[in-house]
Amino acid sequence: MILDKGLGLNAATDLAQSAGTYIDFIKFGWGTAATFKSDLIIQKNKIYHDSQILTYPGGTLLEVAIQEKKLDQFFQETARLGFNAIEVSDGSTSVSKEIRDNVIFLAREKGFFVISEAGKKNPLLDHKLSIETRVAQIQSDLASGSNLVIIEAREAGKNIGIYDESGNIISEELDILAEIGTSKLIFEAPLKKQQVDLILKFGPQVNLGNIASTDAISLETLRTGLRGDTVGKIK
Amino acid sequence: MILDKGLGLNAATDLAQSAGTYIDFIKFGWGTAATFKSDLIIQKNKIYHDSQILTYPGGTLLEVAIQEKKLDQFFQETARLGFNAIEVSDGSTSVSKEIRDNVIFLAREKGFFVISEAGKKNPLLDHKLSIETRVAQIQSDLASGSNLVIIEAREAGKNIGIYDESGNIISEELDILAEIGTSKLIFEAPLKKQQVDLILKFGPQVNLGNIASTDAISLETLRTGLRGDTVGKIK
Amino acid sequence: MILDKGLGLNAATDLAQSAGTYIDFIKFGWGTAATFKSDLIIQKNKIYHDSQILTYPGGTLLEVAIQEKKLDQFFQETARLGFNAIEVSDGSTSVSKEIRDNVIFLAREKGFFVISEAGKKNPLLDHKLSIETRVAQIQSDLASGSNLVIIEAREAGKNIGIYDESGNIISEELDILAEIGTSKLIFEAPLKKQQVDLILKFGPQVNLGNIASTDAISLETLRTGLRGDTVGKIK
Repeated sequence: MILDKGLGLNAATDLAQSAGTYIDFIKFGWGTAATFKSDLIIQKNKIYHDSQILTYPGGTLLEVAIQEKKLDQFFQETARLGFNAIEVSDGSTSVSKEIRDNVIFLAREKGFFVISEAGKKNPLLDHKLSIETRVAQIQSDLASGSNLVIIEAREAGKNIGIYDESGNIISEELDILAEIGTSKLIFEAPLKKQQVDLILKFGPQVNLGNIASTDAISLETLRTGLRGDTVGKIK
Repeated sequence: MILDKGLGLNAATDLAQSAGTYIDFIKFGWGTAATFKSDLIIQKNKIYHDSQILTYPGGTLLEVAIQEKKLDQFFQETARLGFNAIEVSDGSTSVSKEIRDNVIFLAREKGFFVISEAGKKNPLLDHKLSIETRVAQIQSDLASGSNLVIIEAREAGKNIGIYDESGNIISEELDILAEIGTSKLIFEAPLKKQQVDLILKFGPQVNLGNIASTDAISLETLRTGLRGDTVGKIK
Repeated sequence: MILDKGLGLNAATDLAQSAGTYIDFIKFGWGTAATFKSDLIIQKNKIYHDSQILTYPGGTLLEVAIQEKKLDQFFQETARLGFNAIEVSDGSTSVSKEIRDNVIFLAREKGFFVISEAGKKNPLLDHKLSIETRVAQIQSDLASGSNLVIIEAREAGKNIGIYDESGNIISEELDILAEIGTSKLIFEAPLKKQQVDLILKFGPQVNLGNIASTDAISLETLRTGLRGDTVGKIK
């Protein structure tokens, strides 16, 4: 999953053409889907879909829509702009379990691929989430209809989720998450050392997210053992 | 104000098309206006002007021109290349108040929009500037005809101007500057936390500069409360 | 020498058009030459060659080929993709002196420009290389036919080769390397302070490598004394 911070059409074309084969999802970060011109978003969605990539707006937009009780408009607008997936999160706001489950259900019903996100964007709040709470939320989300659950790490990847202040993995948390089965999880892993560690731990097929668009090809060389960090270590 | 570190025509087109609405100024950083081919600069200026963006070469070029007593040539060349604004600085050299005032006056007379810069690029020299000296210079520049004054922070944004070694804002300095009126100031704020802090302190209309071209859209989501850091905090 | 981490055709065109005059070599980093589609690589090589830039795949691919005893295939494929230079390294693997010398010889014989690399990608292994060993390897490589020798610093430029943990230059090592003659060396120098220090020490013509594609123009302003860090310091 690549984080698109606001690429223009030339850069989006470059990304799809050169790395499209390796990309499953592109997230239009935060509210960029609302600040960008509609026709540009529609064109970018088409470029990405032509490379069999699913696209979705950052979860913040949906959170704002839930707060403002504009869920219907959100779904309509998201479909009109050509997105075919949706992220359900409560990283920046509070959303009750009932609403969360309902949003996941509605999004699936409307034909969207659903990725829900576990974690808070504020490190203080995020650290209060025990690993048991995280696991329970992941399992609840999957039961409610989420296709995949993403483990939050923001764009910077430090002091949040499974990462400590230097961006290193906290192993115990990871082991517990792994029991859920990594095929249902996407780990946000913006830093190279995180990508390397997760590939070496879970294998080259592990789902990684919040990858910078300029790192898409580099990540594939890590997965295939063609970069120094993983040479001779990929089975 | 976006820092253009040497974008090619495809990237410049992307920037203007996707974020042009949110950009007032684009600075062609440092001496890039002298290392780039003339026809490329002229084409880039046209692309940016078509999106109602003012453009100017980095102040270092003017400083060199002053040292080499080639001010007339500088103005001619700057106009020939299609720039419609000018930055007047002494970040890398020493310029007397008399010359500085005269350069601001001449630039205005020749029809350029004038942005003058307060601060030194060398942190040792920059720290020697008391806040009183900074304020006096800003007021003198505005009196001499500067349209706006920019507060130096370089590309890295650390240990310079209003930022400490970690890039955090030094509050006292900021409060004193604020008395001048933020509508006349552009704060160089290359780091996200600086952008967030200045938006939350002065409101979403605060002028920010040295923004990376890849961050133009992200910054707009911060200003509109559509990124986690500012959700629910923008009035 | 620019590190191409996987640029698309629009970005490659931008780079060649705007900074091509200042670039001697472009390295397609790590195994990107194997993960990219063949026709894209061929097109990128043509774009770069039209600007008189030599191109080569990252050394990791050759190291893997040597391990898998597929040297002939490697040379054939490299030529078919349109590369006209080759990097010979043992940064990620062990290669005997005999094989290394032979590969350098074969690459030259097949008409490639040859750049060999001194250094290990793993900092622990790299630190075990005494400066005497490094110098001996450089001289041996040049005797075997290398056109240039590159001093390893990876993409990050810290805690490796001539750089300490903060990315600052270790002066003694540099002085000894300098005795070889800098015209035969390329210093990997991804960080701006490294570029500044090497330019101020060895002059604006010093060969620098692993430069980010977005820093190509910025580096030229450093070399010509048109950026704050080097204004008035270039003879």
